[in-house]
Amino acid sequence: MADRPDRARGRFITFEGGEGAGKSTQIRMLAAALEAAGQSVCLTREPGGSPGAEQIRALLVTGDTERWDAMTELLLHYAARRDHVRRLIEPELEKGTWVLCDRFADSSMAYQGYGHGLDRDKIADLHKIVLGTLSPDLTIILDLDPKTGLARTRATDEARRRGDEDRYERMELAFHQRMRDGFRDIAAAAPERVVLVDAEADANSLSRTIAGHVRERLGAAL
Amino acid sequence: MADRPDRARGRFITFEGGEGAGKSTQIRMLAAALEAAGQSVCLTREPGGSPGAEQIRALLVTGDTERWDAMTELLLHYAARRDHVRRLIEPELEKGTWVLCDRFADSSMAYQGYGHGLDRDKIADLHKIVLGTLSPDLTIILDLDPKTGLARTRATDEARRRGDEDRYERMELAFHQRMRDGFRDIAAAAPERVVLVDAEADANSLSRTIAGHVRERLGAAL
Repeated sequence: MADRPDRARGRFITFEGGEGAGKSTQIRMLAAALEAAGQSVCLTREPGGSPGAEQIRALLVTGDTERWDAMTELLLHYAARRDHVRRLIEPELEKGTWVLCDRFADSSMAYQGYGHGLDRDKIADLHKIVLGTLSPDLTIILDLDPKTGLARTRATDEARRRGDEDRYERMELAFHQRMRDGFRDIAAAAPERVVLVDAEADANSLSRTIAGHVRERLGAAL
Repeated sequence: MADRPDRARGRFITFEGGEGAGKSTQIRMLAAALEAAGQSVCLTREPGGSPGAEQIRALLVTGDTERWDAMTELLLHYAARRDHVRRLIEPELEKGTWVLCDRFADSSMAYQGYGHGLDRDKIADLHKIVLGTLSPDLTIILDLDPKTGLARTRATDEARRRGDEDRYERMELAFHQRMRDGFRDIAAAAPERVVLVDAEADANSLSRTIAGHVRERLGAAL
């Protein structure tokens, strides 16, 4: 057999936003559209995504909201993220796969930085220590009033099925509001990487909007 | 009741060294001597020492030696350390207790830095981000040829009782040798904080040596 030519590196797309913004629906819709266009796709999520990171996830998503202070929580997220990047994300990108990830580093900045008030420069310094210059090729932030998002979350069957994995949702509304403001700041500060989309829109029109950004920015045949 | 006068802040003493150097014996002997001198003492260890840190410990001390890369391991250790410091060490020091800790930050530098070759400046930067300027008042490094230490460890009943908590001991001898060199460098670089003692000595004479350092450097009535 002849050697196949080197495959191009895949693209790394992250989805961010508060609870109930519709990230998991939109990420599945984009994955389906990319696959229909012949692209090989890997769907993953944080915290978790690799066997080690899933074990760290168990420490983060269950238990009392005061279980960890913001810095400890940040370190656990970055430990899980490091494992996830090394064991799953980088190998998949090397193979030419497009990796779609539900939450990534911007969530740490929004939750621990804007939400909990941890020093944002420290978070950025930690990112450099752990991941160097690794960054998504494109980040889609689903922007939604947290009142709407939390009401949606509480109404879905999915939330009930998740059992006790609701530690983040139980945090107060003001926290979620600070997080939303954080995501907006992040989008404004990095327009070359991040697009903010209005998650009030219905799922189909939101999906078309997102596909348009992926086509324009990453050249996907959508 | 009259208010009691503010109690002086306790002292923070850490014990470091390779496997089988006798840290746990020496830490118990110093604790007993301090208590006999009327000092209130808290014995603790890393990784672990607080309920959250013990749960992180479970991810670190079991499983395959290749389970985590050095950076992920470092982040898990610092997550556990942050929790340990906030929930146990700082509150005890505030109460006036002397805290004796079996391993602390120097172990991260020796294991992940010298042992695994992780960038030492990154480890120092991470320490500053997570713990600021917090540092032990005194660190006792038990210096021992790793061949001797590992042979001692394998011979003890305690090691057998520990079941599968032997992930670090299974790393190769060259790793333990690099770690020993690292501890020696750390002692040479911070003589105001660290003393290196020869762990070939018998337990009683080693205990007298350590008590002497604690008396001279921290003014304990030993």
